[in-house]
Amino acid sequence: MKTKTPIIGVIGSSEPCDNGLFLAYEVGRLLAEAGAILVTGGLGGVMEAASRGCSEAGGQVLGILPGDNPSSANPYVDIAIPSGMGHARNVLVAQTAQVLIAIEGELGTLSEIAIGLKVGRAVFLLGSILRVKGAVEVATPQQAVSAALLALREG
Amino acid sequence: MKTKTPIIGVIGSSEPCDNGLFLAYEVGRLLAEAGAILVTGGLGGVMEAASRGCSEAGGQVLGILPGDNPSSANPYVDIAIPSGMGHARNVLVAQTAQVLIAIEGELGTLSEIAIGLKVGRAVFLLGSILRVKGAVEVATPQQAVSAALLALREG
Amino acid sequence: MKTKTPIIGVIGSSEPCDNGLFLAYEVGRLLAEAGAILVTGGLGGVMEAASRGCSEAGGQVLGILPGDNPSSANPYVDIAIPSGMGHARNVLVAQTAQVLIAIEGELGTLSEIAIGLKVGRAVFLLGSILRVKGAVEVATPQQAVSAALLALREG
Amino acid sequence: MKTKTPIIGVIGSSEPCDNGLFLAYEVGRLLAEAGAILVTGGLGGVMEAASRGCSEAGGQVLGILPGDNPSSANPYVDIAIPSGMGHARNVLVAQTAQVLIAIEGELGTLSEIAIGLKVGRAVFLLGSILRVKGAVEVATPQQAVSAALLALREG
Repeated sequence: MKTKTPIIGVIGSSEPCDNGLFLAYEVGRLLAEAGAILVTGGLGGVMEAASRGCSEAGGQVLGILPGDNPSSANPYVDIAIPSGMGHARNVLVAQTAQVLIAIEGELGTLSEIAIGLKVGRAVFLLGSILRVKGAVEVATPQQAVSAALLALREG
Repeated sequence: MKTKTPIIGVIGSSEPCDNGLFLAYEVGRLLAEAGAILVTGGLGGVMEAASRGCSEAGGQVLGILPGDNPSSANPYVDIAIPSGMGHARNVLVAQTAQVLIAIEGELGTLSEIAIGLKVGRAVFLLGSILRVKGAVEVATPQQAVSAALLALREG
Repeated sequence: MKTKTPIIGVIGSSEPCDNGLFLAYEVGRLLAEAGAILVTGGLGGVMEAASRGCSEAGGQVLGILPGDNPSSANPYVDIAIPSGMGHARNVLVAQTAQVLIAIEGELGTLSEIAIGLKVGRAVFLLGSILRVKGAVEVATPQQAVSAALLALREG
Repeated sequence: MKTKTPIIGVIGSSEPCDNGLFLAYEVGRLLAEAGAILVTGGLGGVMEAASRGCSEAGGQVLGILPGDNPSSANPYVDIAIPSGMGHARNVLVAQTAQVLIAIEGELGTLSEIAIGLKVGRAVFLLGSILRVKGAVEVATPQQAVSAALLALREG
């Protein structure tokens, strides 16, 4: 790989509460400001809010979709990967991200955290009630992004 | 589908403690006696012990492998599915099983529990420290198999 | 693997002509009589006709489905694998089969032939206009099944 | 999707002849000049030559890898997708590309052409002996890129 551009994943609920949307937007914005590429599952909720934050701050957004129609991506996705692989797309998100930030989230997010940790990715939890051994809680979007970038450098 | 043969998944650690091996063997044996087909990830530890229990009691065993070499299946697998899809094979196991029984288990197992619950499968935990909302603890192999078959009938 | 039960794949058009249906039924029947397990993509046309032939002759049928609903399998499938992976299920069919028999078929079948040959499977073409270097034309269902079993023994 | 940046796939042999490498480099270069994003399977041969051409002309390169190690990507890949899905990554390449250009190529490429056509992608053949109904031969890298962009606009 010629580039050192970090690729950071944001995963989480497709139906978060308002605070989750705010956290996701802020994480996306901060990732763009840090020069990172954002990867998500490409759909709504946390995925869309983070994508919007990243996009509006000038960052690039990758969306790995469960379906085979690129048009199902949220409006802030720059590069859509229409996997057509259903829940197996969660594995693609977890492996494409070099670090994962989980915001709220339920069973799908839990599967991504588990696979991410399994393949050696650092995972940070922000505003999430999910608890998995090895995933680290952070308190703010700033902490999440700082911790993610630090984990990458130390990776 | 012409047949009503239940397909039950057993998931869990590839390096369980002795008790985990015993529990897995017993679950496999009881599944065979109940006329079920066993599906696992096809490798060692809990997967192999359950397969052996099922096989030695005359049952049929399906193994969905992460690699592309059918020979990597444990010796008790009747039908190997060499997926070549790495961790995405966990999704295949979770979706092929009509009910899941988790024995011990770590991150890979956690991903299977999460996907299984997400797609509506009943999940029972036996001798496992994993805790996921919606997965139900059981105390013995007999309870696990009875609960699995009951969940299927009510499914 | 404890068993030497051959697993033979039948692939082909989901909308074949009457001759294609006849050929597929006969191949399925002969595979059952030879003691083989049949694997197909689990849906209609050639897949269903082969499954019916195999099932009515007492054989066992594995169906690897593109969708995530086992009920979408044709009525002759004994074991459904609801992959939920769309066209990637073609890779699963090609890799699970130890030998492939293609009957008629179009683009999906062509992808399965290509992957099958790529991973070292013998591929036989019956009543198909598809031509791929390495795939061998046969003239009758009997020839297809004999050639498949011979390829396996020599494998 | 906010962006109209075209995503064009280049597929082909991992061990092409010198002419194939030249054609691939030129196609990559012209795609970058046209403002397109290049997607390939991320490895060597045609994939690497096209990636180099695109990268050296300032374009962005996406590599969807069969393995799970991003470091296996060729040096010109900007964004690596380490799918870990073996040959099923061919399906991801074929679906992510909005148009496909095949240069030389063998069985893996054939599977990508078949899936690409199946999901409605225009496919152009450059210096390839592969022949699939629906794929269109072109004579030069310029023709390939012009035809690809035209197909997209008419899409």
